[in-house]
Amino acid sequence: MSESGETRPLAIVCGGGKFPIEVARAAAAAGRTPFLIGIVGAADPAIEAFAHVWLHIGQFGKLFATLRAEGVADVALIGGLTRPELAEVRLDWGAIKRLPDLALAFRGGDNHLLAGVAAIFEREGLHIVGAHEIAPRLLAPLGPIGSRAAAPQDEADVSMGAALIAALSPFDAGQGVVVAKGRVVAIEAAEGTDAMLARVAELRDGRRLRLSGLSGVFVKAPKRGQDLRLDMPAIGPQTIAAAAKAQLQGVAIAAGAVLIAEREEVARAADAAGLFVAGYAP
Amino acid sequence: MSESGETRPLAIVCGGGKFPIEVARAAAAAGRTPFLIGIVGAADPAIEAFAHVWLHIGQFGKLFATLRAEGVADVALIGGLTRPELAEVRLDWGAIKRLPDLALAFRGGDNHLLAGVAAIFEREGLHIVGAHEIAPRLLAPLGPIGSRAAAPQDEADVSMGAALIAALSPFDAGQGVVVAKGRVVAIEAAEGTDAMLARVAELRDGRRLRLSGLSGVFVKAPKRGQDLRLDMPAIGPQTIAAAAKAQLQGVAIAAGAVLIAEREEVARAADAAGLFVAGYAP
Repeated sequence: MSESGETRPLAIVCGGGKFPIEVARAAAAAGRTPFLIGIVGAADPAIEAFAHVWLHIGQFGKLFATLRAEGVADVALIGGLTRPELAEVRLDWGAIKRLPDLALAFRGGDNHLLAGVAAIFEREGLHIVGAHEIAPRLLAPLGPIGSRAAAPQDEADVSMGAALIAALSPFDAGQGVVVAKGRVVAIEAAEGTDAMLARVAELRDGRRLRLSGLSGVFVKAPKRGQDLRLDMPAIGPQTIAAAAKAQLQGVAIAAGAVLIAEREEVARAADAAGLFVAGYAP
Repeated sequence: MSESGETRPLAIVCGGGKFPIEVARAAAAAGRTPFLIGIVGAADPAIEAFAHVWLHIGQFGKLFATLRAEGVADVALIGGLTRPELAEVRLDWGAIKRLPDLALAFRGGDNHLLAGVAAIFEREGLHIVGAHEIAPRLLAPLGPIGSRAAAPQDEADVSMGAALIAALSPFDAGQGVVVAKGRVVAIEAAEGTDAMLARVAELRDGRRLRLSGLSGVFVKAPKRGQDLRLDMPAIGPQTIAAAAKAQLQGVAIAAGAVLIAEREEVARAADAAGLFVAGYAP
């Protein structure tokens, strides 16, 4: 039995990173049979430890035929994808039939793209489920993870960062910001979290951003109105390493709305680096 | 006579870049006698072509004594400064008397810092004037500079970028954004415009951001409520070079609220690179 009492087979469309495998393990542990669909060029070869098939982006016809053959109605879309150019997508006949919908989905921000793709799945009678529904234990809790907590000045920076992410939401941009002592230092867009934190580290190393000692917080949260079934923000040990290089005080994530990969390792790495990692009430 | 009919001597506190010298030339051409105060470590040695003195950040006592001795009441603060750590500032007795005000100014975003410093000047009976008041011909006009104009799709991206900058204003962050086909690609914070445009170029070169051909616009505007006397956004030929490397369609700046350095060279470089540069009605 899963945590939700669900036992139906589950397909996981796997983008990059370790999350697809963590979710597959959680699903299997909960009594569901995971069937993994690896996106060529994105998914980790380790998905082959489970029943799987590899597909190119754009092979919608083959994808839907495979899901029907496997008798799977529940689908999770997990892991990162580089946003493809329409010209690079390998379209099969099943995709070409859906081309008007796909073309519309490709204009605009990430939420818009994902919502368009989700609608295509749902018109096939498939049910999109989120990682948080399959494996709720991967979600950020409220309060500290690891042994450190945020100081009052950090909490003011967290509030400012959370408000800034909310203000960016109508633009379908930005799940992460760095705020230090009341000053917005970096705002994430297409470069992603790791590149944004590396930028803060470089600015500080080069003395182009002058802050003394550990200071600043990285705040990560979904955009308002973001469909968490399709794109839940995530952190992992590499986030802590990047925050430590940027000499931050800590990492604050929206409780219940951000996934944590390898939580024990996240706590250990944060303690070792002297950072706090905490879920805040969004 | 200046364009405003003003002939009183003018002190220019010079940060980095060529703008302090452009403003000094414009002031001299308009019949005012410029007296330049070079910030050690920031100002271009070329300021020595004018009557000048060099000061360290923090030498407020010496600054105010110099201005009194020169009989100057109008002061312009022009050019970039790396935000100093309080510990690095060379404080003289004139600064130490004003330390509570300075310490308050150093918490928070750039607008807050500049407003705090401006208030210190005004309490000395000095009058802060903006580059746009001394040299209005340096300001962005409405419409194209150079021979290309924005296409309708570009105009949609410009509107989105302008709205995003407005939404960021309450956070005292972000004068520049890149929007491509309805998607927010990059948002500027502490790294500055050149680094943000270099990031877009890198993301495209590395195929981590996939857009075909020239696409996207760089939008630059002051934050809402920004005091243009203290910190007016600026572009110059290096901005056009950076936008071209990022393979953008063009550069859009808020008319009347952004300075253009070397306007003829900006127009020529934009034409050569196939970009539009245009002032939009903010």
